[in-house]
Amino acid sequence: MSQPKEITIYDIARELNISATTVSRGLKGHPTINKNTRKKIAEKAKELGYTPNTFAGSLRSKRTNTIGVIVPRLNSYFMSSALAGMEHVANKNGYNLIISQSLEDSKKEIENAHTMFNRRVDGLIVSLAFNTENIAHLLPFSTRNIPVMFFDRVYNSEQFTGVVIDNFAAGYDVTRHLIKQGCKRIVHLAGNTLRNVYHDRLEGYSQALKDHGVPFDPHLVITSNLSEEAGVETAQQILQMPQLPDGIFSANDNCLVYCMLELKKAGIRIPEDIAVAGFNNDRVCQIIEPNLTSIDYPGYAIGETTATHLINHLLGHTNIHNTNTIVLRTELVVRASSLKRKE
Amino acid sequence: MSQPKEITIYDIARELNISATTVSRGLKGHPTINKNTRKKIAEKAKELGYTPNTFAGSLRSKRTNTIGVIVPRLNSYFMSSALAGMEHVANKNGYNLIISQSLEDSKKEIENAHTMFNRRVDGLIVSLAFNTENIAHLLPFSTRNIPVMFFDRVYNSEQFTGVVIDNFAAGYDVTRHLIKQGCKRIVHLAGNTLRNVYHDRLEGYSQALKDHGVPFDPHLVITSNLSEEAGVETAQQILQMPQLPDGIFSANDNCLVYCMLELKKAGIRIPEDIAVAGFNNDRVCQIIEPNLTSIDYPGYAIGETTATHLINHLLGHTNIHNTNTIVLRTELVVRASSLKRKE
Repeated sequence: MSQPKEITIYDIARELNISATTVSRGLKGHPTINKNTRKKIAEKAKELGYTPNTFAGSLRSKRTNTIGVIVPRLNSYFMSSALAGMEHVANKNGYNLIISQSLEDSKKEIENAHTMFNRRVDGLIVSLAFNTENIAHLLPFSTRNIPVMFFDRVYNSEQFTGVVIDNFAAGYDVTRHLIKQGCKRIVHLAGNTLRNVYHDRLEGYSQALKDHGVPFDPHLVITSNLSEEAGVETAQQILQMPQLPDGIFSANDNCLVYCMLELKKAGIRIPEDIAVAGFNNDRVCQIIEPNLTSIDYPGYAIGETTATHLINHLLGHTNIHNTNTIVLRTELVVRASSLKRKE
Repeated sequence: MSQPKEITIYDIARELNISATTVSRGLKGHPTINKNTRKKIAEKAKELGYTPNTFAGSLRSKRTNTIGVIVPRLNSYFMSSALAGMEHVANKNGYNLIISQSLEDSKKEIENAHTMFNRRVDGLIVSLAFNTENIAHLLPFSTRNIPVMFFDRVYNSEQFTGVVIDNFAAGYDVTRHLIKQGCKRIVHLAGNTLRNVYHDRLEGYSQALKDHGVPFDPHLVITSNLSEEAGVETAQQILQMPQLPDGIFSANDNCLVYCMLELKKAGIRIPEDIAVAGFNNDRVCQIIEPNLTSIDYPGYAIGETTATHLINHLLGHTNIHNTNTIVLRTELVVRASSLKRKE
């Protein structure tokens, strides 16, 4: 593909048959150039694809007004809500988001980080991939004083701030709710405990069992990638258990929904035979029958909070380096899927 | 925030107490520099955040191996599938995607285009916002010979190629199916007909009615932004009709699902009272009860196709400027929501 040379003010000057000085002044809105000419110049500049913020410009100002976001996947209601929250704050402050997905693969996450670094984002927001084990790929950002913030799936580090919910407390609340509904054999659908979110939800589950005198049975903890496919497989696994569980707490809604559909096919009554509760309060909770009890994960708020702290730091209003973690509230939303008895 | 100067080979040389020439050669893998030193240099470079592909590099090569994608929203199964298809092709070819969302607002779409332009993407993929009326904001790309491709929501133009499905045929098929099920008063939930996809689906609906001797009634065409909220409002509108419809064809699944939930609350039996069919074959079609008849929109394939043509053009294998439109096949997936009688 041919690579035409940069469009310069000289090209604009030639096209309009005026001096480059006039063009330069016109573009800067210099008072000595009359409105009409300024308008003509601006229009021609746009038409030719001349932009003042080309690399040279960026190099000078060292500002791109762009924030990079790296997320595991873009296929969940939680993630689209979180991004909507970030967009809201970014727009208000004249920043644009550029987003990339790691597809749950740390190798891809590293590539994404390099891309964002080379595209010169002013700041970076990351939710870690399933299998990311360290954050060496993010250190170049701190070397360059480019602030990095984590949300949801965070990494506990000196340099970076994370915005999370209290996953332990949430996991505890769901489990306690199921116990209060009379459940004694509660299956937990867990994710990769390398990630804080899944580790803490499992801990909350264990602690709730302990505090209520329900023995912890490792066979009842089923770990997977929490995908739709995993949901179906999990249901088959559950149906083959010598003794069926009477409750399920899943670390996400999506996986549980496909597990529910499979259990229902097998004639299991929900909640009578098995009471179930998920995590995230995904839209699907109000579509599946019976409607799904879940933890309301404030995706929009977590996105807003993360972007707000990052941008306040960029604008020099605050210094996030003093903050290690920001914890948002969650709420248990009880629906028909877990109500064996009125609470 | 302090802005440290560029990390250069001189910084690396100083830190390692060796000559800049050695560093430069080491980074290039020059044979005169021994493995050990090369390793030390590489590690220090990484630690300091030195990267060869900084702006200077990009300016020379004019290549960023980055493809920009602008989409209306990231909150649909169709969109996440399309992006997964693009990622698949991009990864295979060493390209990274950076994604931004217009949030259905042409103003935001214009900003996104500028951001992508200034981040120097090698190519751009766009699905247009609900209210975008022209593509002036994309012309600078063609001026710079940066290829632009549309998918799904395309704009018919000389310069650019679009990847679409035959929305007319799909709309025709769904409507004919409902007519064959005995429906005579079929409501159509339409989107903004400024967008090809919604315009063509409506046309297909009208033509099918005409070909089967069912009169077209403008009162049965309800136009909205096809959101969840619109689905609920539409249901209320339908329930107030002097004579209830016996069928609904919605231009997307998501809106229809919320319409169905509301109709069910009002005691409407689906499909007995009203047979319904949607568009996209979203995951939710197999979660809602009764399962939803829909047009299988091959999101992953449309993403793969778009990225493949763009990258083949970038690699000089083909020239997309010769291609105006690429049309993919769709399929009507019949489920319980529309089956008044066995076909």
